[in-house]
Amino acid sequence: MQAVADFQSYFVDYLQKRSFKKQPTELYEPVNYILSLGGKRLRPVLVLMGYQLFQADVEKALPAALAVEVFHNFSLVHDDIMDEAPLRRGQASVHEKYSVNHGILSGDVMLIYCYTFLQELPTVAISSEAIRIFNEVAIGVCEGQQMDMNFEQRMDVSIEEYLKMIELKTAVLIAGGLKIGALIGGASPTDQNHLSEFGRNIGIAFQLQDDYLDTFGDPEKFGKKVGGDIAQNKKTFLLLKALALAEGEQKVQLLNWLTAPCEDENEKIASITALYKELGIPQLAESKKMEYQSLAFDHLAAVDLPEDNKKLLAGLAHQLLGREY
Amino acid sequence: MQAVADFQSYFVDYLQKRSFKKQPTELYEPVNYILSLGGKRLRPVLVLMGYQLFQADVEKALPAALAVEVFHNFSLVHDDIMDEAPLRRGQASVHEKYSVNHGILSGDVMLIYCYTFLQELPTVAISSEAIRIFNEVAIGVCEGQQMDMNFEQRMDVSIEEYLKMIELKTAVLIAGGLKIGALIGGASPTDQNHLSEFGRNIGIAFQLQDDYLDTFGDPEKFGKKVGGDIAQNKKTFLLLKALALAEGEQKVQLLNWLTAPCEDENEKIASITALYKELGIPQLAESKKMEYQSLAFDHLAAVDLPEDNKKLLAGLAHQLLGREY
Repeated sequence: MQAVADFQSYFVDYLQKRSFKKQPTELYEPVNYILSLGGKRLRPVLVLMGYQLFQADVEKALPAALAVEVFHNFSLVHDDIMDEAPLRRGQASVHEKYSVNHGILSGDVMLIYCYTFLQELPTVAISSEAIRIFNEVAIGVCEGQQMDMNFEQRMDVSIEEYLKMIELKTAVLIAGGLKIGALIGGASPTDQNHLSEFGRNIGIAFQLQDDYLDTFGDPEKFGKKVGGDIAQNKKTFLLLKALALAEGEQKVQLLNWLTAPCEDENEKIASITALYKELGIPQLAESKKMEYQSLAFDHLAAVDLPEDNKKLLAGLAHQLLGREY
Repeated sequence: MQAVADFQSYFVDYLQKRSFKKQPTELYEPVNYILSLGGKRLRPVLVLMGYQLFQADVEKALPAALAVEVFHNFSLVHDDIMDEAPLRRGQASVHEKYSVNHGILSGDVMLIYCYTFLQELPTVAISSEAIRIFNEVAIGVCEGQQMDMNFEQRMDVSIEEYLKMIELKTAVLIAGGLKIGALIGGASPTDQNHLSEFGRNIGIAFQLQDDYLDTFGDPEKFGKKVGGDIAQNKKTFLLLKALALAEGEQKVQLLNWLTAPCEDENEKIASITALYKELGIPQLAESKKMEYQSLAFDHLAAVDLPEDNKKLLAGLAHQLLGREY
């Protein structure tokens, strides 16, 4: 396949063929619902692209791509319950459309099915290693979600802890997907690790960019309300860095916005945004993102393949990380 | 090991050694809590006993016993949320002691850890087959829980559907535990299946006995309030059979108790219990239980081992099924 869009449509075709036509309906309908809501299918596409770096017959990696996408959606279903999020991709979240109980149980069965898909891989040895990688990823994602929930109750979150949290919650699944794809494709352990590190660093850079865009993005291109993180006191890289750097009157002002009841949300967003600019936070966020982005491309460069073969993956990463910069 | 109690204490020692001393604490403390609440440890003991039928070095089956016990406790944590149960083994349930979110996420990580334990088994081939059996069981348990929740909303549940539900919700894990134990011990596929069928039929018989005892048991020996199922209109074998058999005035009376607001719970329990007796339900429940019990022992007899080797397992089954009969 020559373009990212080819991988996307190839995977979506497969996903449709694999829909859960099983009983009891109440258990499997929410699974089909969440999987049908769309999205970029980035994670399964990365599994397939990781495979295609080493082998052409990309259908062999499809069950692993499915496992990664079903796992991602399982985590969305359970996270949406925990975060009380009524919407997912602009539609009702699973617990909102069905019930919390449906969300819990359908999520559980999705997680189990991931392992049945991983057992469909070409050999028992590959399946076993893929499950080992997958377990590490899945445990990390749970730990990241717990850290994220803990942060809501804390005012002393360090930048280091924050980076660890986004690594676990977001980046390890991207890393693991690429690694599993490369594993199935027969990559050496060294190349598997370079691709995994590429994915991990891209994942962290992407989340840092997301933090930046939530405050400084162009509302039309970003697709969400700008300033939402500020309105919710969300502990992003921007806020944590500002808390670390602000002194004197700036610190008093910032803490006041975070703790006092908010009478005018737009004023709060404008004031904190201005404070971020005074403290040079946008530049610091960009430079931290570039640090991870650059590490990512070092690892991609180290993969023992002709540069030409890596162009599609590099292009996708640039596309993901190039928005608005 | 010579006695069931030996297996229990051997497993409990191992469970303590394997406690989750990991970060973040908020994720793993609920896991250690639920696993410390005790219980008979029946399911992991059956894994070990299934193994010891074929091999002496029972420590090789410990990780599988752990997986089965952790899975069972995962299902209790999530089921207690769905059933809004405040108590588990006489203590606060996980969501009650911590929160619903802690229950969801700690349950998720328990489910994932089951697979890491299954990957500790002696060979990749054994691990892979154990995971295959485990997946079937785990999917069945989710389907059984969904059926059970569906039944709460339905008045037309057939006995056949009910038996399928208890098979999935309760019996398949007992069956799967024995099968995995036998697999690790090197049993032939035929013997694995006989042990699995033994466990499945014992599990169904045990649940039928539990239904019987909830209404007709000796309160002192049963350990729960007698009549609880009747008070809650729970669709047990007794109620479904009564609904199928009652006619005329009996049917009117029964439906009235099920639908009218209950003013006197004790009167309701006494009246429905009397109706069950008039309809011969206790005898029918006993005979249905004996049907499954007898099938179970046929399968145990068919296992290709000297009868002496099977005595401990047969004794445990008689102990489980012999209460009050």
